[in-house]
Amino acid sequence: MILTQLGERAKEAAAVLRTASTAQKNAALEAIAASLIEDTSAILEANAEDIAAAREHGMRDSLIDRLTLTAARIEGMAAGVREVAALADPVGEILSGYRRPNGLRIQKTRVPLGVVGIIYEARPNVTSDAAALCLKSGNAVILRGGKEALRSNTAVASSIRKGLCRAGLPENAVALLEQTDRETAARMMKLNAYIDVLIPRGGAGLIRSVVENATVPVIQTGVGNCHVYVDAAADLTMAASVVVNAKASRPSVCNAAETLLVHRDVADKALPLLAKALKEAGVSLRCCERSLPFCEGAIPATEEDFATEYGDYIMAVKTVDSLDDAVAHIARYGTGHSECILTDSFEAAEAFTAKVDAAAVYVNASTRFTDGGEFGMGAEIGISTQKLHARGPMGLTELTSVKYIVYGNGQIR
Amino acid sequence: MILTQLGERAKEAAAVLRTASTAQKNAALEAIAASLIEDTSAILEANAEDIAAAREHGMRDSLIDRLTLTAARIEGMAAGVREVAALADPVGEILSGYRRPNGLRIQKTRVPLGVVGIIYEARPNVTSDAAALCLKSGNAVILRGGKEALRSNTAVASSIRKGLCRAGLPENAVALLEQTDRETAARMMKLNAYIDVLIPRGGAGLIRSVVENATVPVIQTGVGNCHVYVDAAADLTMAASVVVNAKASRPSVCNAAETLLVHRDVADKALPLLAKALKEAGVSLRCCERSLPFCEGAIPATEEDFATEYGDYIMAVKTVDSLDDAVAHIARYGTGHSECILTDSFEAAEAFTAKVDAAAVYVNASTRFTDGGEFGMGAEIGISTQKLHARGPMGLTELTSVKYIVYGNGQIR
Repeated sequence: MILTQLGERAKEAAAVLRTASTAQKNAALEAIAASLIEDTSAILEANAEDIAAAREHGMRDSLIDRLTLTAARIEGMAAGVREVAALADPVGEILSGYRRPNGLRIQKTRVPLGVVGIIYEARPNVTSDAAALCLKSGNAVILRGGKEALRSNTAVASSIRKGLCRAGLPENAVALLEQTDRETAARMMKLNAYIDVLIPRGGAGLIRSVVENATVPVIQTGVGNCHVYVDAAADLTMAASVVVNAKASRPSVCNAAETLLVHRDVADKALPLLAKALKEAGVSLRCCERSLPFCEGAIPATEEDFATEYGDYIMAVKTVDSLDDAVAHIARYGTGHSECILTDSFEAAEAFTAKVDAAAVYVNASTRFTDGGEFGMGAEIGISTQKLHARGPMGLTELTSVKYIVYGNGQIR
Repeated sequence: MILTQLGERAKEAAAVLRTASTAQKNAALEAIAASLIEDTSAILEANAEDIAAAREHGMRDSLIDRLTLTAARIEGMAAGVREVAALADPVGEILSGYRRPNGLRIQKTRVPLGVVGIIYEARPNVTSDAAALCLKSGNAVILRGGKEALRSNTAVASSIRKGLCRAGLPENAVALLEQTDRETAARMMKLNAYIDVLIPRGGAGLIRSVVENATVPVIQTGVGNCHVYVDAAADLTMAASVVVNAKASRPSVCNAAETLLVHRDVADKALPLLAKALKEAGVSLRCCERSLPFCEGAIPATEEDFATEYGDYIMAVKTVDSLDDAVAHIARYGTGHSECILTDSFEAAEAFTAKVDAAAVYVNASTRFTDGGEFGMGAEIGISTQKLHARGPMGLTELTSVKYIVYGNGQIR
């Protein structure tokens, strides 16, 4: 189908979803979950073809794993859809309401965004996750997945559309773009007449490409060069535990810490302790000149190390002269994702949380908590690292806009 | 100064403003107002040069009027700055706060955006308006005005910077881009490292150019193809009053109505009445085939008329078969700005407000109320017609973002 036609149909579906009741949307989500389970073998067949093709093209094992579906994973996808059904519907909330001196009653009301575009890479589960979140928040969605997962995504999307039909909602509320070439993606990014917002989900290259090429408003997600700063007043036992967790509990994710900053007054005590704990967790260190003598087995850090999101068992280490020095380092190298101070000083905690400009700023807790589930949102569509519209974990609420409804009795100006 | 240097300095200034107290910001606004009054003659001199050059280049009178400053207008600008000082500071508000099962305390806190870029046309008063709103909301601002107003804008900006200095805040919090060529503007639109959001203020051409060229997140403002729909159950006396007000009270602004939609059941009664009232207000009509016989002196409308934002004493008229027909017309031709239904039917009011997708939807009141002042925001930086971040009139709150501050006692995941 041509892209504009897809857009037109999604927009028509969005008009239906805009006024769909919570009960209707939940019934559709239940029907989708049932449909996914029912279609397990068809989805697995399609997935097997994707995997065979990927192996043929020499895809590496970690990516193959992300691409692979199993009956259990499909059950997980269906369970995810049911979990979204159980979440509160954000649409219709009156955010504020007041009467003006001239008698006008103004109600700022939460409404769906309309049509959401999702551009993502080779994880077929994103197809059902994103569709469920968009549907529950009253949005139609146009999905553009990676070439490697096209057969899997097509099978999943077709199962979802079957569920929508059965529940009496338009199947075009969930559309999968079957062309996976770059040109079509580039045209999708400029489809302002039909798409209200684009959310890229994937690596830094994908996100940069969307930000650079899109004229549709974009929500930038997921790049995280996160820091943990061990203040002069830190509890060093707690510091070791939090630093190891922030770095090594899951190094590949965006909320993992990449650089350790240590106040010079405690460097001689903190660094040997932290370096040992990190080493035991399998982390190798790249240290500034002043930190190096205290970190056994570390190698010198280059300027580039501080700018790198390793996504791996590697951590950069720097000794700083003061809290302000730490803040300045974070302002220079950070990506505005998650930043942490470890301290028992009230003043230092206040200063750090006020001065650091990031989606999430932690006092005495691991950066790994920046996550929709951990924040109590139930599910997330991504983590925004921009400041417009949404910042930090994005749940259902972040997939909505507002509308001012104004009631009068003939007021003129 | 080179653009990146300007950006760097603005970013440094934004770091200071981020933690500036309300008292400091208000003192700076008072100092700026005083400075503008003090510099009246210098500003008028610069403005006279702009006007002379504009006349030489054959600028038309209405634009010259928008460019012209007088002592009274400068007093107005200073008064505007003082009004912003009197508004509540949005920064620091805790939007929500809760404790997670693991003891983490999460506080979603309102913070400044950082650096705001404003690209605008030939109204020098925007320079002080925008600077005051950005400053009060804790943002640094980079202003890029039109070539025609460069001398005036430079004088105003220099006066503002003097005020900032006197109040002990960084003068770089308000920067004026002195290069007014298109290439520099295009580079400013891609200055993602320094600018957090771009707000274009001006005509449709300027806004389109920013949307198409910017990689910095944009808030699209001010294009308004607004409709008034006279339902079968409308009070026709009220309808005449509201339609005339919506169209003719100030046709050049974006919240003025452009098209009148009338339900076929009342077309024979409503249209003669409305056409007469509009004619008396100086409005000429362009009618669909079915409306034409009821509107004295009207000419036939073309397809293009319904897509046009006249900004003038012209109105398109269409007879529709039903409320849904009106909603479909609005979905096709509207720009999502302000839409109105005139009706005494509860059901019709409910259906219209639910189905129409626009920033502001009115029942029995003029579209002309879509305005920050009229909505009680005190002042506005523009009217957003996009759905991301802000929709409708944008006041101080819409110039902010959020930050999650998370307090723990050693939590790991």
